Amino acid sequence: MAKSKHNFCVIMAGGIGARFWPMSRTSHPKQFIDILGTGETLIQQTYKRFSRICPKENIYIVTNELYKKLVQTQLPELTSNQILLEPARRNTAPCVAYANHCILSRDPEARIVVAPSDHIILKEEIFLKNIETALEAAAENDWLLTLGIRPSRPDTGYGYIQYVDGHEEVYPKEPHLRKVKTFTEKPNLELAITFLKCGDFLWNSGIFIWSLKSIMKAFETFLPEVNNLFKMGVGKFGTRDEKKFIGETYTICKSISLDYGVMEKADNVYVLAADFGWSDLGTWGSLYENRPKDAQGNTVIGKNVMLYDTSNCIVNMPRDKVVVLQGLTDYIVVESEEVLLVCRKTDEQNIRQYVNDVMLEKGEKYV
Amino acid sequence: MAKSKHNFCVIMAGGIGARFWPMSRTSHPKQFIDILGTGETLIQQTYKRFSRICPKENIYIVTNELYKKLVQTQLPELTSNQILLEPARRNTAPCVAYANHCILSRDPEARIVVAPSDHIILKEEIFLKNIETALEAAAENDWLLTLGIRPSRPDTGYGYIQYVDGHEEVYPKEPHLRKVKTFTEKPNLELAITFLKCGDFLWNSGIFIWSLKSIMKAFETFLPEVNNLFKMGVGKFGTRDEKKFIGETYTICKSISLDYGVMEKADNVYVLAADFGWSDLGTWGSLYENRPKDAQGNTVIGKNVMLYDTSNCIVNMPRDKVVVLQGLTDYIVVESEEVLLVCRKTDEQNIRQYVNDVMLEKGEKYV
Repeated sequence: MAKSKHNFCVIMAGGIGARFWPMSRTSHPKQFIDILGTGETLIQQTYKRFSRICPKENIYIVTNELYKKLVQTQLPELTSNQILLEPARRNTAPCVAYANHCILSRDPEARIVVAPSDHIILKEEIFLKNIETALEAAAENDWLLTLGIRPSRPDTGYGYIQYVDGHEEVYPKEPHLRKVKTFTEKPNLELAITFLKCGDFLWNSGIFIWSLKSIMKAFETFLPEVNNLFKMGVGKFGTRDEKKFIGETYTICKSISLDYGVMEKADNVYVLAADFGWSDLGTWGSLYENRPKDAQGNTVIGKNVMLYDTSNCIVNMPRDKVVVLQGLTDYIVVESEEVLLVCRKTDEQNIRQYVNDVMLEKGEKYV
Repeated sequence: MAKSKHNFCVIMAGGIGARFWPMSRTSHPKQFIDILGTGETLIQQTYKRFSRICPKENIYIVTNELYKKLVQTQLPELTSNQILLEPARRNTAPCVAYANHCILSRDPEARIVVAPSDHIILKEEIFLKNIETALEAAAENDWLLTLGIRPSRPDTGYGYIQYVDGHEEVYPKEPHLRKVKTFTEKPNLELAITFLKCGDFLWNSGIFIWSLKSIMKAFETFLPEVNNLFKMGVGKFGTRDEKKFIGETYTICKSISLDYGVMEKADNVYVLAADFGWSDLGTWGSLYENRPKDAQGNTVIGKNVMLYDTSNCIVNMPRDKVVVLQGLTDYIVVESEEVLLVCRKTDEQNIRQYVNDVMLEKGEKYV
């Protein structure tokens, strides 16, 4: 792969992965876990993937201060300037604004990929080819690009992107690159089924590609108050003063998502329809889809798990724990650091509620 | 209660409680666990109960050598002569023969209660009154007495005792004391239902009462080869030579139960029909019956267990473990020392099989 010195990558790693509790904990969220049992954590996989198209020194991690040590330990190659620490959770727009200004101080000609740290991508070659195409398109055009996934089922857990189904190709080199018509938040099942039938809806992967110029312009237009806050830090990024400045900025900055604050409002948004074996691993169910299964449809992580009359379960147990499960169908059975969860797969949307209850009753230690 | 100096008690504590796995482990079986969460282990409860009718120095524990330290720790009052250590598992007849000869060296006029260490008795006053009656009857007659429990359901997990339903009272002081007609091993359900209808069948509690003379005579008659082995140790019990002698004796002694070897063959067996809130706590189901339950019929041991949409379950978790269970009905969920078991209540008879499988695949450490 060509590694242009103008290629930059911003990996967003501030989430707490509540839906993956109890594996994912506030103190050690999903992106820092080897959740598939591959030997690498999700953020390590993500970093490695992008280091194939970006010079390593051009990769930034934006994460919460809480996770500084986790990032340093898992990605020891990074210099401290590449780890942008957020003192508070403010959703994705401030995170991108922060990264923009850091990159601006290094390379105004930068082309940037913004990506979550905790997704899986099974077909990496295809993915990287898509990224390169998008980076090229972003260099040539004032476009905000996103990768859209061709939906395989009416999933109600994803946002959808509808593209303009015109006959004219907007980008001759890549017929699957289309102009975006609308963004839609997570739909209900009926709507999701309709989207699937239409054929011009894609899943919103949350992976964005643009030139620094284009995204700065978009912020100036649609989120000037956020952009101006960070603009006041010019000269401080990469210096000793950065931390204090960011502390003050995050205190007053509003919390807003990139989708809502920028993408849904801009009219120069384009989507590259892609298929690279993607999952946001947002739920135990999505982990289940992405793991090998035994003849009874169980996916098991754990060396000493014995199953009897058990099918279609997700089992994730500490390596040396001896576990006997009998008579379970369609359950999630997960243990991590002194917390055990047994829950029906169909009811996993309630996990957030359990986490809240555990926090209220037992304290932060367990969530 | 009157504590005759001739009253002795033999508490059998050599079992491994496999059906209560994983709480009960070979290295730490059920009798040494506070399985009801009362603050006392089952053997401590049993010892305390019998110390109300026997002088403390007349209480013997027969157990496997493996459990010497457990007994010493849990019952520190006992002298080493009161702890009879079996070097091998040989079922109940050799255990009783061993105790008989120890007691013979101290008091040929002894009257003995032989009882398991791991049963629960909810109505202790009634129980002790029954024991006193039986001890009195045993002092006056050459009888082998057992306590029979009036059955409340056609349980197929117990042995049954049929008594002679004559009009004549065999023991005027206690009309519920009857001559035994037959012993029956665990019946199938159909047979158990018939037994219950008959009205003259009782559950075999495994608690025996007799004079030393009567039980010695019975051994000489029905198990002379076992009795003779222990007879060769006369003069050694309570001395330094006991351990070596017992080691040799157990190596060659056959394994046989008291029921099969003596009780089913003797014709001087009597049963006192009783009702003192008894359970052999042989299964998780029996623990369930004996524990308080919440409004959804769950019985929970563990401080940090949160249940959602869960009913009629037995949950036994380490004290500080945070556990969220959802969508379970009629399950056993138990964790103990790095082993987790989730299993349908109706299938708990398979636990022995799981224990075997775990032993084969993971080794003795976990069983």
